[in-house]
Amino acid sequence: MEMIRIFAPATVANLGCGFDIMGMAIDGVGDVMEVSVGEGTGLAIKNSSDVALPDDVEGNVMTPAVRALLSAYGQNKRVEINILKKIRPGSGIGSSAASSAGAVVGVNELLGRPFGAVRLVEFAMEGESLIGGGAHHADNVAPAIMGGVVLIRGYSPLDIIQLPIPDNFYTAVVHPHITVTTCEGRGVLPREIPLQTAITQWGNVGGLVGGLALGDMALVGRSVRDVVAEPARKHFIPGYDELKHRALAAGALGVNIAGSGPAVFAVVDSMEGANELCEVMKAHFMALGIEADVYPSKISGQGARVV
Amino acid sequence: MEMIRIFAPATVANLGCGFDIMGMAIDGVGDVMEVSVGEGTGLAIKNSSDVALPDDVEGNVMTPAVRALLSAYGQNKRVEINILKKIRPGSGIGSSAASSAGAVVGVNELLGRPFGAVRLVEFAMEGESLIGGGAHHADNVAPAIMGGVVLIRGYSPLDIIQLPIPDNFYTAVVHPHITVTTCEGRGVLPREIPLQTAITQWGNVGGLVGGLALGDMALVGRSVRDVVAEPARKHFIPGYDELKHRALAAGALGVNIAGSGPAVFAVVDSMEGANELCEVMKAHFMALGIEADVYPSKISGQGARVV
Repeated sequence: MEMIRIFAPATVANLGCGFDIMGMAIDGVGDVMEVSVGEGTGLAIKNSSDVALPDDVEGNVMTPAVRALLSAYGQNKRVEINILKKIRPGSGIGSSAASSAGAVVGVNELLGRPFGAVRLVEFAMEGESLIGGGAHHADNVAPAIMGGVVLIRGYSPLDIIQLPIPDNFYTAVVHPHITVTTCEGRGVLPREIPLQTAITQWGNVGGLVGGLALGDMALVGRSVRDVVAEPARKHFIPGYDELKHRALAAGALGVNIAGSGPAVFAVVDSMEGANELCEVMKAHFMALGIEADVYPSKISGQGARVV
Repeated sequence: MEMIRIFAPATVANLGCGFDIMGMAIDGVGDVMEVSVGEGTGLAIKNSSDVALPDDVEGNVMTPAVRALLSAYGQNKRVEINILKKIRPGSGIGSSAASSAGAVVGVNELLGRPFGAVRLVEFAMEGESLIGGGAHHADNVAPAIMGGVVLIRGYSPLDIIQLPIPDNFYTAVVHPHITVTTCEGRGVLPREIPLQTAITQWGNVGGLVGGLALGDMALVGRSVRDVVAEPARKHFIPGYDELKHRALAAGALGVNIAGSGPAVFAVVDSMEGANELCEVMKAHFMALGIEADVYPSKISGQGARVV
């Protein structure tokens, strides 16, 4: 069997206002896995990482993703995946999306790239449907596969747009070691929202996309707002209002919850700023007795890839 | 008294998905007015156009707009405005916004331009508050003053962003001679909307702003959708579904209601396309026994100005 090693980046979904429709890849943190494809049938997943994962292959998000790809490919293959490094599940930075993305990108590579990026996103979404209460979302898998900042304009049909990335777009992500599952995060959302709230949200979506396009990081920052999910989800994150206040005071252009949390991201226009914000946000959780990982990162255009 | 002549363009608000937050200026149709400023006090408005307007100066949208400007200026002046040409009120293409915009741009010019565009938008919004049930909106006045395609990210504080305009951005606007007031148009809107509907809408807002920024007219066209106001307002427009179907079949990239209607606009990527769509849309209303004006236009970056 031929084997390659794949890196699949962590991702921040929603970006504040872009609930369910936007996400971005964070470079420097992600899953690393060995993917092998050969003759035969069946999928074997081995976990060599230091993170606990379901033992049952049926419980792994990579399984439906790989099966969807092979089904579209039309030939049975033997696939083996060895997970070397894993984003902690429940972090809010696209742990399951990185797994699905890495698996489909790896298998596609070994099959000679029969599928383009959008098809790979569709396959990886099958993995996402295992979590999140059966809902299909692409706001983590699309940036995990395609890299950069991605807009999912619509789902039927899937319409994915790669947005311009300002040269000075950096982020600081903090992951406190508490767990919020995607299901929990979804459970607190309202089913209906006031029209006026929705208008505020789509004004910010316009501002965020406009800011990326115009290379205006101040506009990006003040558009990273969320009047829909953040008010409902912030209670999962200890001292969230105080954390946000401190990060903004320390120079963050915008701060919000990554995906359904508990990770929090800040937007900033320099690597020094990202490093400093990581320290500020980590200190916040340490003071509360909560361990936290931090990831300062430039936003790059690279998605899951052979390394 | 010094006098200048001002042209203030018609505008299409909402652009489908961008309800209350987006609008664009249409060149070639608008208000024309003579504006005079001199020593003294009081505002006189003369209507030399062929459109009926309120006789009472207190009922004219220009009055609160001009007063707001003079109040900020801090000196009393005599202002006289003679309306030569007027967009028909109730058309849906920013008739009142053009009046307010032309008035404040003209007075500002004669005072030596003490105010920038955003301040002028704020003054003109005072005019808009006379209509529309007291609500403050800038999605017509902002493009009428600034030109091009404008995003109002938020209202407190007013955050207006001029978006890039693709070179091949054209529109066809049809104004059937039926009247829908802004109040009527607002009265049918839901107060709450399902979260899923809101997500669809802000996905399209992202697509529309992204399409403008990327110069992707196909993306602009498929993002000019509205799952919030169009379903409620289309019943004011005779045969709307059929009209839309015909325009799309004739090559429109997107079709929607201009503002609160009854005008309808189509998005297209050539002037020939805009001309053809105007014919198709006019024929639709003529067949129903309804007179209609049409305006094919390139989207230009020019707002209200001295002519």
